[in-house]
Amino acid sequence: MVLSRAECQDLDAKDPLGAFRDEFSLPPGVVYLLGNSLGALPRHTPERVAHAVETEWGVHLGASWNTAGWWDMPQSTGDRIAPLVGARPGDVLAGDSTSVNIFKVVTAALPLRPGRRVIVSDLDNFPTDRYVVEGAARALGAYEIRDVGEAGSSLEDALGEDVALVLLSHVDYRTGEARDMAAVTELVRAAGALMVWDLCHSAGALPVRVGEADFAVGCTYKYLNGGPGAPAYLYVAPRHQDAVHNVLSGWHGHAAPFDFEPHYRPAPGVRRFATGSPPILSYAALNASLDIWERVDLDEVRAKSLALTSLFIDLLDDLVDPGLGLALATPRDPERRGSQISYRHPQGYPVVRALADRGVVGDYREPDFVRFGFAPLYLRHVDVYDAATALAEVLGEELWRDERYAARLTVT
Amino acid sequence: MVLSRAECQDLDAKDPLGAFRDEFSLPPGVVYLLGNSLGALPRHTPERVAHAVETEWGVHLGASWNTAGWWDMPQSTGDRIAPLVGARPGDVLAGDSTSVNIFKVVTAALPLRPGRRVIVSDLDNFPTDRYVVEGAARALGAYEIRDVGEAGSSLEDALGEDVALVLLSHVDYRTGEARDMAAVTELVRAAGALMVWDLCHSAGALPVRVGEADFAVGCTYKYLNGGPGAPAYLYVAPRHQDAVHNVLSGWHGHAAPFDFEPHYRPAPGVRRFATGSPPILSYAALNASLDIWERVDLDEVRAKSLALTSLFIDLLDDLVDPGLGLALATPRDPERRGSQISYRHPQGYPVVRALADRGVVGDYREPDFVRFGFAPLYLRHVDVYDAATALAEVLGEELWRDERYAARLTVT
Repeated sequence: MVLSRAECQDLDAKDPLGAFRDEFSLPPGVVYLLGNSLGALPRHTPERVAHAVETEWGVHLGASWNTAGWWDMPQSTGDRIAPLVGARPGDVLAGDSTSVNIFKVVTAALPLRPGRRVIVSDLDNFPTDRYVVEGAARALGAYEIRDVGEAGSSLEDALGEDVALVLLSHVDYRTGEARDMAAVTELVRAAGALMVWDLCHSAGALPVRVGEADFAVGCTYKYLNGGPGAPAYLYVAPRHQDAVHNVLSGWHGHAAPFDFEPHYRPAPGVRRFATGSPPILSYAALNASLDIWERVDLDEVRAKSLALTSLFIDLLDDLVDPGLGLALATPRDPERRGSQISYRHPQGYPVVRALADRGVVGDYREPDFVRFGFAPLYLRHVDVYDAATALAEVLGEELWRDERYAARLTVT
Repeated sequence: MVLSRAECQDLDAKDPLGAFRDEFSLPPGVVYLLGNSLGALPRHTPERVAHAVETEWGVHLGASWNTAGWWDMPQSTGDRIAPLVGARPGDVLAGDSTSVNIFKVVTAALPLRPGRRVIVSDLDNFPTDRYVVEGAARALGAYEIRDVGEAGSSLEDALGEDVALVLLSHVDYRTGEARDMAAVTELVRAAGALMVWDLCHSAGALPVRVGEADFAVGCTYKYLNGGPGAPAYLYVAPRHQDAVHNVLSGWHGHAAPFDFEPHYRPAPGVRRFATGSPPILSYAALNASLDIWERVDLDEVRAKSLALTSLFIDLLDDLVDPGLGLALATPRDPERRGSQISYRHPQGYPVVRALADRGVVGDYREPDFVRFGFAPLYLRHVDVYDAATALAEVLGEELWRDERYAARLTVT
């Protein structure tokens, strides 16, 4: 039993998160289903960034390292991210990119398990995770990478007394499948290995609990609306914070940075994972979005996310002929789902282009994934209805055959 | 023979760089002598950043990775920095922080000299250089650090067949002393070692030529006015570009990032040194300042820089009683000088605070350095005159004794 457009509008009128939509500046005439790639712009971000540029930098200049809290940005911003991943303030540091943070965390973690020389990674991780693990293994030397996932073995089979560390994504970037973080963490830790989570595709989309995990990393430019290339973050479990070493040991992670001591001496806690000068303008934008996130109930986000994603699946089940080649890649079980729905389709790329021409923005990932992200703060049921009917039309009328949609853009 | 204030004003009226001052938004009522720490805000930067926030992000969203050139920012911005350090476009990549870039460059360079296990660093380098070298040595294992500089041996004595790499600052962050890049590079390369330059305190202040150097790094938030924590950069000599490996091997440095291949495969050239998603808003600000820099003649910058720094020294020679404890730390020989003048004074910290209260902004570095940076694009001769007379007054009348100036701020 699928909803009508009018019923969708009724649900939107009663949506407890409905008011948040007005806090975002959305592109006109578009159903934006790429909040899982680049989150929409919060309305008050331009003002906050302009203040950082014109007043903090332009007027107060270097004094702002103190007076505007620039120096503390990695920690103060990390403190604001912490509740979004179920961590305590003080256990999260914001900065650098996700890739750099994976490198920091993996190289810091491995020495905690001397004698164990295997890193388990998932071929279904976002590729940068696997690439950075290769780089970390190369830097440290004598580590082996064991792959799990679609093309490898199961996690259970991969675990053993030689495994030092497991790096997995909470939500798969292509299929939108969510792992049970608590259960996987328990399995990995029971095998004596360290658990590192990549939260890029889950934080802000559903309640995340780092729980007993050892480390985690994530980005802030997807569901968290921090802006393009916004500072990423890392989490270090309190039990490890003063035992680990950051090989990217820059002066911002020094115990006494302004004493200009000749040798590195790590700051207490997660601050030791800071490295160089933080890109303040990008932190300003991120903090503007966190002003919104600190008022959000993540259980309400999860409930709406499941309602929107289930509605999308149900509508497409109803509207699209099974012979048209559209295959759901995301689990039907809501518990195993992030806030993204992916389909496989042999003509995935032109399908996405044809949809975009009709005002529905999704994206494509090799080899044949069509992805739609559902950001519950600014998407409505009626948007989901319009997106599903547009997709059904593109497929049913084979609008993707238009030759304009064949040519690849550099970045999709 | 020192100039009068009126003579300074005459020089300013004839200054070929004089018109650039109007392109910067300077703090009112202040002589800003910290362009060596955080450069002033270019007037058109706010508009450029607002465009990136409101239009590129807010309206076009993810499409801007193509249409606004976001994806290419590390290379396109690096191409604009290249002429400022005497490099060719294609040999410089902008991104991350100086500290992260030092790590990338050092870990990439060392395997080019197998069998050599010593890294030469300068205790007078900015401390993060030394700290990051420690981290890189720790990550790679079995490397020794040999210190030169004030507290160590001479560079000549430090060089030997065991030295893989030498990392030195072009201009000393405390004393403002400039090294002869070409001569030092030749010495180091003649010894079979790789030369890595830190250009943080010279690029934008004088013409820099990477010449025969192997690698270089630098920041853009000092003389280059890129904004707080703006993207840094790295240079790789063409002869090394396809031979080196970036251990921070993220997807932005992959040969085919959107093929999502399971294994890392480096992009050709310097692009392989890209790692994660670039902080676009910070790149927007940096590119606004580079709009100015591409119209600047660096020989004119050098001539004015030397005129301003020489004037400052001459005025203080004339105005300050030798018994007042002020000792010049920067070489009197203009050829051995960057664009910064440092004095040592036992009460350096309260002296800087007292000066700031009189509208002259310099800074302090342990143990007793008072630093003044001279950014030739927006500083006038008359500013130098006013700063020198204010410093002479603070010292002559012992205004620094006011107890308000004793308490340390967190960050100076």
